[in-house]
Amino acid sequence: MFRTQYDSDISIYSPEGRLYQIEYAMQAVAQGSTALGLKSKTHAVVVTLMRSSDELSSHQRKIFKVDGHMGIAISGLTADARVLLKFMRNETLHHKFVYGSDLPTGEVVSSLAMKSQRNTQRWGRRPYGVGLLVIGYDGDKTHLYQTSPSGNCFSYYAQAIGSRSQSARTYLEKNFKEFPELGLEELVLHGVKALKESSGKETLTKLNVGIAVVGKEQKFEILKPNKVQSYLDQILQTEGEIEIENENENEKDEEAETLELKLD
Amino acid sequence: MFRTQYDSDISIYSPEGRLYQIEYAMQAVAQGSTALGLKSKTHAVVVTLMRSSDELSSHQRKIFKVDGHMGIAISGLTADARVLLKFMRNETLHHKFVYGSDLPTGEVVSSLAMKSQRNTQRWGRRPYGVGLLVIGYDGDKTHLYQTSPSGNCFSYYAQAIGSRSQSARTYLEKNFKEFPELGLEELVLHGVKALKESSGKETLTKLNVGIAVVGKEQKFEILKPNKVQSYLDQILQTEGEIEIENENENEKDEEAETLELKLD
Amino acid sequence: MFRTQYDSDISIYSPEGRLYQIEYAMQAVAQGSTALGLKSKTHAVVVTLMRSSDELSSHQRKIFKVDGHMGIAISGLTADARVLLKFMRNETLHHKFVYGSDLPTGEVVSSLAMKSQRNTQRWGRRPYGVGLLVIGYDGDKTHLYQTSPSGNCFSYYAQAIGSRSQSARTYLEKNFKEFPELGLEELVLHGVKALKESSGKETLTKLNVGIAVVGKEQKFEILKPNKVQSYLDQILQTEGEIEIENENENEKDEEAETLELKLD
Amino acid sequence: MFRTQYDSDISIYSPEGRLYQIEYAMQAVAQGSTALGLKSKTHAVVVTLMRSSDELSSHQRKIFKVDGHMGIAISGLTADARVLLKFMRNETLHHKFVYGSDLPTGEVVSSLAMKSQRNTQRWGRRPYGVGLLVIGYDGDKTHLYQTSPSGNCFSYYAQAIGSRSQSARTYLEKNFKEFPELGLEELVLHGVKALKESSGKETLTKLNVGIAVVGKEQKFEILKPNKVQSYLDQILQTEGEIEIENENENEKDEEAETLELKLD
Amino acid sequence: MFRTQYDSDISIYSPEGRLYQIEYAMQAVAQGSTALGLKSKTHAVVVTLMRSSDELSSHQRKIFKVDGHMGIAISGLTADARVLLKFMRNETLHHKFVYGSDLPTGEVVSSLAMKSQRNTQRWGRRPYGVGLLVIGYDGDKTHLYQTSPSGNCFSYYAQAIGSRSQSARTYLEKNFKEFPELGLEELVLHGVKALKESSGKETLTKLNVGIAVVGKEQKFEILKPNKVQSYLDQILQTEGEIEIENENENEKDEEAETLELKLD
Amino acid sequence: MFRTQYDSDISIYSPEGRLYQIEYAMQAVAQGSTALGLKSKTHAVVVTLMRSSDELSSHQRKIFKVDGHMGIAISGLTADARVLLKFMRNETLHHKFVYGSDLPTGEVVSSLAMKSQRNTQRWGRRPYGVGLLVIGYDGDKTHLYQTSPSGNCFSYYAQAIGSRSQSARTYLEKNFKEFPELGLEELVLHGVKALKESSGKETLTKLNVGIAVVGKEQKFEILKPNKVQSYLDQILQTEGEIEIENENENEKDEEAETLELKLD
Amino acid sequence: MFRTQYDSDISIYSPEGRLYQIEYAMQAVAQGSTALGLKSKTHAVVVTLMRSSDELSSHQRKIFKVDGHMGIAISGLTADARVLLKFMRNETLHHKFVYGSDLPTGEVVSSLAMKSQRNTQRWGRRPYGVGLLVIGYDGDKTHLYQTSPSGNCFSYYAQAIGSRSQSARTYLEKNFKEFPELGLEELVLHGVKALKESSGKETLTKLNVGIAVVGKEQKFEILKPNKVQSYLDQILQTEGEIEIENENENEKDEEAETLELKLD
Repeated sequence: MFRTQYDSDISIYSPEGRLYQIEYAMQAVAQGSTALGLKSKTHAVVVTLMRSSDELSSHQRKIFKVDGHMGIAISGLTADARVLLKFMRNETLHHKFVYGSDLPTGEVVSSLAMKSQRNTQRWGRRPYGVGLLVIGYDGDKTHLYQTSPSGNCFSYYAQAIGSRSQSARTYLEKNFKEFPELGLEELVLHGVKALKESSGKETLTKLNVGIAVVGKEQKFEILKPNKVQSYLDQILQTEGEIEIENENENEKDEEAETLELKLD
Repeated sequence: MFRTQYDSDISIYSPEGRLYQIEYAMQAVAQGSTALGLKSKTHAVVVTLMRSSDELSSHQRKIFKVDGHMGIAISGLTADARVLLKFMRNETLHHKFVYGSDLPTGEVVSSLAMKSQRNTQRWGRRPYGVGLLVIGYDGDKTHLYQTSPSGNCFSYYAQAIGSRSQSARTYLEKNFKEFPELGLEELVLHGVKALKESSGKETLTKLNVGIAVVGKEQKFEILKPNKVQSYLDQILQTEGEIEIENENENEKDEEAETLELKLD
Repeated sequence: MFRTQYDSDISIYSPEGRLYQIEYAMQAVAQGSTALGLKSKTHAVVVTLMRSSDELSSHQRKIFKVDGHMGIAISGLTADARVLLKFMRNETLHHKFVYGSDLPTGEVVSSLAMKSQRNTQRWGRRPYGVGLLVIGYDGDKTHLYQTSPSGNCFSYYAQAIGSRSQSARTYLEKNFKEFPELGLEELVLHGVKALKESSGKETLTKLNVGIAVVGKEQKFEILKPNKVQSYLDQILQTEGEIEIENENENEKDEEAETLELKLD
Repeated sequence: MFRTQYDSDISIYSPEGRLYQIEYAMQAVAQGSTALGLKSKTHAVVVTLMRSSDELSSHQRKIFKVDGHMGIAISGLTADARVLLKFMRNETLHHKFVYGSDLPTGEVVSSLAMKSQRNTQRWGRRPYGVGLLVIGYDGDKTHLYQTSPSGNCFSYYAQAIGSRSQSARTYLEKNFKEFPELGLEELVLHGVKALKESSGKETLTKLNVGIAVVGKEQKFEILKPNKVQSYLDQILQTEGEIEIENENENEKDEEAETLELKLD
Repeated sequence: MFRTQYDSDISIYSPEGRLYQIEYAMQAVAQGSTALGLKSKTHAVVVTLMRSSDELSSHQRKIFKVDGHMGIAISGLTADARVLLKFMRNETLHHKFVYGSDLPTGEVVSSLAMKSQRNTQRWGRRPYGVGLLVIGYDGDKTHLYQTSPSGNCFSYYAQAIGSRSQSARTYLEKNFKEFPELGLEELVLHGVKALKESSGKETLTKLNVGIAVVGKEQKFEILKPNKVQSYLDQILQTEGEIEIENENENEKDEEAETLELKLD
Repeated sequence: MFRTQYDSDISIYSPEGRLYQIEYAMQAVAQGSTALGLKSKTHAVVVTLMRSSDELSSHQRKIFKVDGHMGIAISGLTADARVLLKFMRNETLHHKFVYGSDLPTGEVVSSLAMKSQRNTQRWGRRPYGVGLLVIGYDGDKTHLYQTSPSGNCFSYYAQAIGSRSQSARTYLEKNFKEFPELGLEELVLHGVKALKESSGKETLTKLNVGIAVVGKEQKFEILKPNKVQSYLDQILQTEGEIEIENENENEKDEEAETLELKLD
Repeated sequence: MFRTQYDSDISIYSPEGRLYQIEYAMQAVAQGSTALGLKSKTHAVVVTLMRSSDELSSHQRKIFKVDGHMGIAISGLTADARVLLKFMRNETLHHKFVYGSDLPTGEVVSSLAMKSQRNTQRWGRRPYGVGLLVIGYDGDKTHLYQTSPSGNCFSYYAQAIGSRSQSARTYLEKNFKEFPELGLEELVLHGVKALKESSGKETLTKLNVGIAVVGKEQKFEILKPNKVQSYLDQILQTEGEIEIENENENEKDEEAETLELKLD
């Protein structure tokens, strides 16, 4: 019944050498909202679908800036992501203060992986229940990493995480060979199209879609809702669907911005 | 029976990636007294229904001032709220002392979320069993946040928490589109009306209703009972109901004030 | 059987969001000896029924002085009360030493509540098993607070705790509206009468009844047995009952005083 | 079966608000050898029945001096008493060193109670399994306190603890009203007679009876065996029983003294 | 059922003196991807099969450089390997800084074994779930060590670990007597052939095969994909199989390099 | 089944106030090899039966010197005795260094008792599984103490511990009244005779019998095998049994001495 | 089922006073490879049978040098032995550095025993799962000690540990009376013959037999394979068996040496 199943204690292996609690924590990521990332030689992009818990709430942000050259999209427990985000910001800030340069994306991801691993080895703490897609631009190259509760982190050409991410992944797999040579606009459009595949019956709007970009001569930037809308419009036009919602864009943009939760 | 159900240990995930103890802690909030908040472009308001545990007691306060530009309404375990309130006051006080300015509401909420998250990840501590509605005014904007035992915090246009809060939420959902442009008086009246929806058979009086406001050129202020009464009167008149209770208002106001528990 | 019942671990919520161990600790208070408090605008009074564990023992004191302007009556585990009393005395002493003034009653109670809350959140410590009625006079006002194992503390007009306190509470509820304007003598008499309601078959004597007062121009004072007797006499005369016990009062008073356990 | 019974963990309340482990620890006291104390206005006395584990052993001392004005008699786990005794001696020694005066008995007892209470609140330590009768003389008054594993301590006119102490207590209850005015000799004789009631078939001898006195112009003193014998003789003569044992008293006294275990 | 099986607690022996949790941790290694090592008198080589978790990911690196004269190939939990790798790098770096010379491979392995052993002896930590093949060149000799979760480390002529490693081991056992006198090229070819035995239906490509070498006048070096391909080609030609994949080698090489996760 | 039996946790009382783990630890002593002690007015002696685990081993020493005026004989877990011995040596050494005099035996025993008690009160440590007989000479008196896992320590005229010690105890009880006036030789002979009662079928030899003495003008001394033999001879002659074993005594003595394990 | 069996917790005694976890740890030693030791007046020798886990591995060393005058042979968990070896080396090194002389073997063994004992008394650590045979030469005497997981250590004339050690022990028991007067060559030959008794069907070769010696004018030395072979040859010739394996001895010796794992 109990520990014989080896699945209720992070510090216990099953007879097959598995750590079930890590696998369960990955479920927390798999149940999260969809997030995806992709990159060309010059730019990296993350696109997320934000859920609104009810009508009264502004949408929950799923994309956060780490530093000028780096940012993340999350899926899983937002409260855990907040902790990891603060860690990443401290790392980059400290590096910039001491060395006067950007901390390479790969190094931040590596530190994050070490931090995550610790919670998989000691009794009495649970692994972080969140997965991150980290995009960055440094050393004249673009980066896209996925981190997971296990403390693993892998480099990807393109990747999607969270619930229903398989459809997005299928889209990305079909198209990722074109990505390296694409310009930013085309790359974002691919990202939005991939998200659309995963969004099911939910209509994409400028308020529930989050997009962020980083790259050559492009600081990490979370796109404003009207910019997001313009991408949605391009896709809809292509698809012959016109969605007219939120006419008074500019005002609402202001509103949306207001609602952003500051994290530091 | 036991841990196989994964629900008696904060540091254990269920096979579906859920953390049951967080969900149970949220039940403590759901069982609390009703609290609601709403905001316009210029003002933010919280309204609460205070329960009196017996006739001999003064009503339990559910609204507390954090700083001149910020305050909270609570639902859940009052003793836990007390701890979080002290934390928030220390944060704002420290910031004011060091930087000479108000700590933005969003940053206090963010720190609070980090603090709450810690109790969801380590064995041997329970999550805080209280939810807060935080209102504030800074940066020429109004803010309304809801925090929860999970360490999550979201921004809302209007929100209600605690027992029977669904009725209040329904009211708010019907009307929140008008809120941004409203003046303070109208905003408060909406708040009181929403509370009335949730109060069921309980009669609203100046002693069991708590109201606090903050906004442009308006320091955070918990309204005096006679001020509360005037709002109740406006609603009752509208509704044709006249409730004449507590004639000797001024004296009793004094009394009520006396009973306020000082928190620091 | 076991933790599935969620009731044997202070750091675990039940699925309904309850913390059973706090509720059980409150039972320790409910099983304690009766203590009650009441206040007018100028005075606050606590009255307790002291149990004698056997004939050879002096009665257990249930009232303790905290400072010149403040004192407590207890119900529940005396050993736990001792710890909290020491804490309160340290707080007031420190404040007086640093600021040269009395620490307001509300602030001591608030600190006490914080201290009590801590024991409800960490594994491996039990909540304090005692409830306090705290009376004080500061800021030209009288105060009566009840604290509980949960870390909650409420302000009351009048309150009774401990076993059979319901009868006392009923008495208080019937009469509390008169209290604010009463003088000290009348207030004490109400307290003794309320205690009489709860004392059942046990005869009230100057040795098993404890009375303490504080107020305007009245330092906190535990009444001497002969003073207690005079109140008992007033009530008995009213009720036509004459109880003649302990004729050699003065000597025995000395004795009783001798037996008081010094606490610091 | 297990914790559902709430009785195997010191930090868990039962649903009735009881702490079973404290009650079990009190059983350890109740199973101990008999100890009793009594006091007049000028003297305080403890009398104990020492068990010899076998014939080869000297009798186990049950009375210990704390300071010149204070001493204890114990019942329960001797090893635990040793720890508490050392604590009391450190307290009095420190006070004498710092303030140049005797630490009042009540204050030592109060500190001891605090120390005992701590072990009733934290997981992983058991309560002390010993009860003490503390006698002292300071402030021109005599003191008799009983402490218990719960951290409680009460003042008594006379008291008996340990196995079969009920018979002694009955004797004391019958006679304690005379005690306040008695002289030392009479007081000791009452103590020995009370012990005789509890000793059942065991014959009292100068080697298994321990007596200590303290009082006005009387430093705390554990009586020598021949002095003990003289009290036994007085009682036996009264009762017409002559017990002739240990003829070569003086030598054996020396021996007994030799065997006393020094405690610091 | 439970601990009676002695297999869910690292700090408990079974009645036969076994530590099951160590054995389970070794299963985590046995389930890992294949890694093998071999050495001549002048060179040491590791060869790994990298799994790609999906098409969108670059292959997971399984070979890491520790220092100029030393490197590792891993099988098991990558996140744990990351921790051990960082430890090894710190050890060698510190030695070089203090003594100005390379830390001998054997000493690093010995420190690593001590570190691993600690996690097998204390409750609340799990053993590392990863095995390493460490190759190095120092003291004019080549070294090949295997470390395991138990804290054991052995020296080998040639060794293979991970899933399906038995086939590779069989190959190595057949041929290892030739190895000491071989040149680097021949040694690598033997390594690749051994890996081919274990790779089953999976086709070896320059992207899923990792090769690293170290030796006399040869710093530790992870071979570039086109260099890997040239070895694969030699084998395939021998075997009459031609695999034409990835024509635009140079470009993709760049890409692959880009994707390498930096570890410090 | 489990803790309901209250016997698997040192920090839990049974409902009868017993601490079973202490009782079980005493079993470890009861299962140990026999050790006995006795004393006259001028000398104290310990005698032990050493078991040889197999023929290849020298006999296990059971007697150890603490200081010039003090030594111990042990029964139970030798490894635990080693810890306590080191503690006693540190205590005496420190005292000699600081005060320039011998630390009285009673004080060392008292410190040891305190140390042993600690392991009976805290969860997670087991009580020491060894009993000591401590002999010493200081203050012109001889001392014999027995310590036990419970932290108790008693003074004895004579005492035997370990397996089959009852027979020795019976012998000692029959004869101890003569001991105080005996000379060293006679005292030792009594000790050896008592041991013989407990040794059953095992033949006493100079190699399996350990004897140590301390007293007036007699430093603590473990007797050499040939000296032991001389005592054995005296007894055997008395009893008409001649045991001729180990003819080449002098050489073997040397050997035996060589084998003594140094303890500091 | 569970702790009722008292065998899954190092800090719990069984009702018979046994510590099962220590007994289980001793099983880990009993399952280890065979190691034996023996000594004359001038020399001490250890002989071990090294297991090769597979053909590709060099044999696992079972003998380690501690210092110039001391070394060990092990049986049980090698990773645990490594920890103890490091401890012993630190002890001797420190002593040499501070006092300029060799730390006597007995003292190192005693320290080791204390260290091992600690892991048998505290919850959460397991006892070391390894037994050592320690040989040394100091004070003009030879030493042979056996240590065990219990923290016991005994002196032996000759001893064998590990699996099938009983046969070796039988050989030693038959012959140990001759040992004291033997020269080194004869002593080693006895050791190898004893090992042969335990080796069953396994053929002894210069690669799986380890021999080390220490003694008068003989620093501790692990014999080179060809030296080992010469002893094996002497025995085989005696027995009429000729084993011709490994013709190219010198080269392979070099190889074997290379493979030795450095431990500091």
